[in-house]
Amino acid sequence: MEKLRVGWIGYGRRGAALLTPILNHMPDIEIVGMCDEYEDRVESGCARVCAARGVRPFDTVDYRDLLERDDVDAIVCASSWESHVDICRDSMLAGKPCGVEVGGAYSVNQCWELIDTYEKTGVPCMMLENCCYGKEEMTVLNMIKKGLFGEMVHCEGGYRHDLRESISTGHEMRHYRQRNYMHRNCDNYPTHELLPIMKNLEVNRGNRLVTLVSMSSKAAGMNSYIKRLKGEDYKNANFAFAQGDVVTTMIKCAHGETITLHLDTTLPRPYSRDGLAQGTLAIWSEEKNGVFFDGDEVVPSDNHKYLPFDSILEEHLHPLWRGYEAKGGHGGMDYLVLRAFFEAVMSGTDMPIDIYDTVTAMSITALTEESIAMGSSPVAIPDFTKGKWTHRKSAVRSKYCLDEVCEEFFE
Amino acid sequence: MEKLRVGWIGYGRRGAALLTPILNHMPDIEIVGMCDEYEDRVESGCARVCAARGVRPFDTVDYRDLLERDDVDAIVCASSWESHVDICRDSMLAGKPCGVEVGGAYSVNQCWELIDTYEKTGVPCMMLENCCYGKEEMTVLNMIKKGLFGEMVHCEGGYRHDLRESISTGHEMRHYRQRNYMHRNCDNYPTHELLPIMKNLEVNRGNRLVTLVSMSSKAAGMNSYIKRLKGEDYKNANFAFAQGDVVTTMIKCAHGETITLHLDTTLPRPYSRDGLAQGTLAIWSEEKNGVFFDGDEVVPSDNHKYLPFDSILEEHLHPLWRGYEAKGGHGGMDYLVLRAFFEAVMSGTDMPIDIYDTVTAMSITALTEESIAMGSSPVAIPDFTKGKWTHRKSAVRSKYCLDEVCEEFFE
Repeated sequence: MEKLRVGWIGYGRRGAALLTPILNHMPDIEIVGMCDEYEDRVESGCARVCAARGVRPFDTVDYRDLLERDDVDAIVCASSWESHVDICRDSMLAGKPCGVEVGGAYSVNQCWELIDTYEKTGVPCMMLENCCYGKEEMTVLNMIKKGLFGEMVHCEGGYRHDLRESISTGHEMRHYRQRNYMHRNCDNYPTHELLPIMKNLEVNRGNRLVTLVSMSSKAAGMNSYIKRLKGEDYKNANFAFAQGDVVTTMIKCAHGETITLHLDTTLPRPYSRDGLAQGTLAIWSEEKNGVFFDGDEVVPSDNHKYLPFDSILEEHLHPLWRGYEAKGGHGGMDYLVLRAFFEAVMSGTDMPIDIYDTVTAMSITALTEESIAMGSSPVAIPDFTKGKWTHRKSAVRSKYCLDEVCEEFFE
Repeated sequence: MEKLRVGWIGYGRRGAALLTPILNHMPDIEIVGMCDEYEDRVESGCARVCAARGVRPFDTVDYRDLLERDDVDAIVCASSWESHVDICRDSMLAGKPCGVEVGGAYSVNQCWELIDTYEKTGVPCMMLENCCYGKEEMTVLNMIKKGLFGEMVHCEGGYRHDLRESISTGHEMRHYRQRNYMHRNCDNYPTHELLPIMKNLEVNRGNRLVTLVSMSSKAAGMNSYIKRLKGEDYKNANFAFAQGDVVTTMIKCAHGETITLHLDTTLPRPYSRDGLAQGTLAIWSEEKNGVFFDGDEVVPSDNHKYLPFDSILEEHLHPLWRGYEAKGGHGGMDYLVLRAFFEAVMSGTDMPIDIYDTVTAMSITALTEESIAMGSSPVAIPDFTKGKWTHRKSAVRSKYCLDEVCEEFFE
């Protein structure tokens, strides 16, 4: 397959951003259909594709129209969180591989629905988790695969992003985020940090997430922000948001590794994914922007200092990142995650983030909601592989593989 | 009282370090008695005091000998973790205020024993938590008390200190830490980060710690370290240490604030107390060494940047820290915490870290042990004040007060 014909579902702010690296850098990807629930967005997306490529896509406000068309090879879904599972399921049922933007599930049952559909149809589905292809994340993965971290023990990460303006104006911007913050309390967005950590810890391939416990702080940030910046009469100024400002989650893995996650989106703060990876031989800290390798000598530990991350890049930068930095959104991650999906579809291989990874990551949102609702009780994380994680290997060998570094593609 | 006569219990490495700021900077503090369970340490401590002050202290290997003496006004206890509660209790029963080094309790019952003894005797007891008097910690407290953080929502901290050399050689150094790591699994050392956080959140004075959940990683760090650096035949090279390498704890407060703690002492890493304080108006990050104050204007949040911590010191440095930096161990903290204790004893006031604060902090170790043992179940944190936290105010007004900034002492 030399060209891939894509049906696009969801053309909000994220959908528009995600389209950019395709229009700018991927002449082999054709956008043949455009769908959004809002007609003005459909029109906007169609006009943009037409201007860039000279062909106007088929347009619709019902994604099922796209799934029925023979000229659509694959789906990219950048719609509201609530619609992801339905769209993934229906895409698979229609025989069309689906690349789905990040977001969590609303129930564990939904997750099983996706597994069942995949196992019946064999049609792949991949979460487009761009952070798996981040420069830091991939370089850390590369170092772990080289054995430089020794035995992995503990990882941390977070989605720590001040979203108060976006949440407060959600009703004006038609953004689904607002209603989620109004009514739910959970880690609604764990995958940016969790999916790279899952790859670091070989989850679903020799390891698995076994249990989690989640705790939520009070919700004080949104009311404070809206009252100060929008005024007492602005929508939701005094609404009792259900979503706590900071949600902390602890996850235990089958081989004893632990993971700490923080959702932290409604208080003032600089952006961070707060990455940390610790093994018996090394540590990486995103906040310190550095790596420390064990000295293999008895020295006073108080002298330990991080090496600047930049200083280890020449030796340890993941090969996929050599030369890709300039392409596409979010410093190149969007380009890479889309290419990973498209090239897997075109070559007919499985996905580097496959349905089991996708569903495991999505389930965390529903499970944190349960744990918080039950006073931070531990909850079991289902084994969506049904035991196959004990012997599953990566089904894909490509330069986009996240389970190993496939050196033969970089020679 | 112009001079204070102190009986010293515990002259190991920490005891020796803690004595330094006294001998160097506190002519009003006399060390009249010296006790350790090992005779050579007693001799070493006595010789040092004699050389510095010209008077040899009374010496003993049984701390009860010190408690019986009329010439001992107060006790400083820097002995093994396991002995702290007995020594505090017996000191109070003997009518001698006790300043006790940091460490956790082994059961909640022990904590109640201290409360009961205090309430019967009225003799004060203070945990010598030097980090409450750290420059960063006090400056953050000062900013919170000024209202610059708005409503407090979430705090984090850790004891993230590579102790592998100390733990592995504990049997040679007669260090109690080794046996604790061999046999227990808990957050064995939470107070360096937790007590400053408790002061930030007004715990025991209008707020309280209500529940916690704790999770432990596997224990891989010590075996890896001992085998590589000491050899396969060294003690404990293959011993199955009970203590997990990284223990994460989440605590919920009465007013909805959350706290995340990390014990992280048996993997390679640079030192950090990993402090974070978040309110509706500001954030402090120790790892970023900075503070961010909300801009009170609608700007793209991705532009947020931390102000370097040094840049806010001129305006917000806690007044107690102006001029104290050069004195004593750990960058001045040891001097300050000891003065806080001694001056409270001499003036007959209550302690800035009183028995309720001390016991609450000590209880966390026993409670994390319970939570981990029960598969990260939530456990209730007792209300050691028996309801008085709802209306308790600080009993001390002094420059060492940690519940408010008592400006009149700095004019």
